[in-house]
Amino acid sequence: MSAANRLKDLLKIELPIVQAPLAGVQGSALASAAINAGALGSLPCAMLSIEAMRKELAAIRSQAKGPINVNFFCHQPPSVDAEREAAWRLALKPYYDELGIPADQAGGGPLRSPFNAEMADALAEFEPEVVSFHFGLPDEALIAKVRRWGAKVLASATTVDEGLWLAARGVDAVIAQGVEAGGHRGMFLSDDIGTQVGTLPLTRQLAKRLEVPVIAAGGIADAQSVAAVLALGAAGAQVGTAYMLCPEATTSAAHRAALKSDAGRITALTNLFTGRPARGIVNRLMRELGAISPLAPAFPLAPGALAPLRAKAEAMGSGDFSPLWSGQDTSGCREIPAAQLTRELAAGIA
Amino acid sequence: MSAANRLKDLLKIELPIVQAPLAGVQGSALASAAINAGALGSLPCAMLSIEAMRKELAAIRSQAKGPINVNFFCHQPPSVDAEREAAWRLALKPYYDELGIPADQAGGGPLRSPFNAEMADALAEFEPEVVSFHFGLPDEALIAKVRRWGAKVLASATTVDEGLWLAARGVDAVIAQGVEAGGHRGMFLSDDIGTQVGTLPLTRQLAKRLEVPVIAAGGIADAQSVAAVLALGAAGAQVGTAYMLCPEATTSAAHRAALKSDAGRITALTNLFTGRPARGIVNRLMRELGAISPLAPAFPLAPGALAPLRAKAEAMGSGDFSPLWSGQDTSGCREIPAAQLTRELAAGIA
Repeated sequence: MSAANRLKDLLKIELPIVQAPLAGVQGSALASAAINAGALGSLPCAMLSIEAMRKELAAIRSQAKGPINVNFFCHQPPSVDAEREAAWRLALKPYYDELGIPADQAGGGPLRSPFNAEMADALAEFEPEVVSFHFGLPDEALIAKVRRWGAKVLASATTVDEGLWLAARGVDAVIAQGVEAGGHRGMFLSDDIGTQVGTLPLTRQLAKRLEVPVIAAGGIADAQSVAAVLALGAAGAQVGTAYMLCPEATTSAAHRAALKSDAGRITALTNLFTGRPARGIVNRLMRELGAISPLAPAFPLAPGALAPLRAKAEAMGSGDFSPLWSGQDTSGCREIPAAQLTRELAAGIA
Repeated sequence: MSAANRLKDLLKIELPIVQAPLAGVQGSALASAAINAGALGSLPCAMLSIEAMRKELAAIRSQAKGPINVNFFCHQPPSVDAEREAAWRLALKPYYDELGIPADQAGGGPLRSPFNAEMADALAEFEPEVVSFHFGLPDEALIAKVRRWGAKVLASATTVDEGLWLAARGVDAVIAQGVEAGGHRGMFLSDDIGTQVGTLPLTRQLAKRLEVPVIAAGGIADAQSVAAVLALGAAGAQVGTAYMLCPEATTSAAHRAALKSDAGRITALTNLFTGRPARGIVNRLMRELGAISPLAPAFPLAPGALAPLRAKAEAMGSGDFSPLWSGQDTSGCREIPAAQLTRELAAGIA
């Protein structure tokens, strides 16, 4: 059986395409559209409260017929470091002054919680067919909870070593997340972004070494790049950036404008927006503070002090202080329905 | 006509495979073997004196039947900065002490000269069919010299913008050098390694935007990865790392051992060995000084102070102070003749 057919069998999907979970820029609408087109649709849950997650899952179950992938982070929450937080606020003070924001407005910002028992229990009501993790895996008791209703478990590897580690722990498929991918790097065995691997060699090496199916992610923008990763031995392709202009995505106006611009092809890994390296279109904050800075508080604490800057700038149509998540190929971004995009991506499959 | 057939027509080669120029680890023997197997064989000339270049070209012309690619750097030579050089020697002093090398032995190290009129004139005696450049292009007068005998001109792009720049200047084909590639990055419009692009999205975007053929490079290790880049629209694949264990390569014992080891899969961009970012297997010097360091003198001045350390360590079988150039996939490295490797790579071509 071909690798793609094995994946389709495993996940009960028609097409070996995964609509990547895009925390912050999508909810049930994009996932449902991808599912109904035959792909594995994904609901990113890391930034949702339990109540919001329930609501989104109920919407997907009523709108879409097919398996759903719920995606979670599994980081260790840090303790707040008052000194580091103060230094971060000091670094941002000139921007607060420029935008006329009082310093005491810092705080808030999006929530990013690691997977926990309460989430697993809420999921049980919906029995999602696939549960995927970023930043490694949660502890075994939590995995056992989702296995109870038969969920398949997926996780991201950013190096060959991470892929071997995940496979040894029994995941059902490994997402080979190349350095080109937009958003957070799933890296967990190393925090050295200098040794992160490109999609092509990462996929090829994992496809050669792992028994479980490998899903390639990072820089896959169209049917030809889907065909390319399948030629490498991938069982499927996970595509994120190309979905971000679809009407079903909740991508902000500033983010959409950046994705459509020539500037969209210049991306970098940055820790400024959350505290962990993630790929976004280079914007003013990244240029002025350096894309990777020791100033940013530990994940996920960085956004608090940025929140009022981001809100005010976005209200003026500017993405200067927003994470403009994007992979390294925005050429697949078009304002077309997600179902059409999914079908076009699948045209790359022999 | 398929992209691959256009490239074969353009360069008069049987297979759309380029044996990458590997300065420092190969000469005429590897190039000749690749040519005789139907690929475009390459002679890296940046580290050769004019006399050595003549000798190597004569050897290729007598040993191989087919077109040859001569490869040159085209950087601006820097002036020596005495203060920076002193800081560099100070940083290396603990290693000099450890290896028992007197400080006055610093200096020497391999020569790396930019392409110039004298080189072009020496080439004219051999009329190489292909001349390729790294770090942009030399001035127009120099290009005109090599055009006089009908040479095709190739150059490396590491970003979409560099590819557009090269195509606008009339190169015959663009090498899309993904961030995965071993050795020096050909980057020239930007010195920001944070915005360098992976082979997959770089190749795909350039194949969509350029009229001239695109040759993919970086992380291509076997027939499947050759097939993948052709699926992206590349006209050919340039492969370097996989050739480094071939008996025809002059790869050092320490370098060969590193390529064969598990450690070989951990690479990073480093400026320590030459002053410019190049990808190599992470070794002691990179770990201890940081792979990218402001201490390294400007390209190509860094190797002077490293030369005695490297020589002494290599004599003891250690690669601690050597540039262990490698791309991000060493899984294609085997001790097989270059002709066999070339044929196996070509099996990926439909």
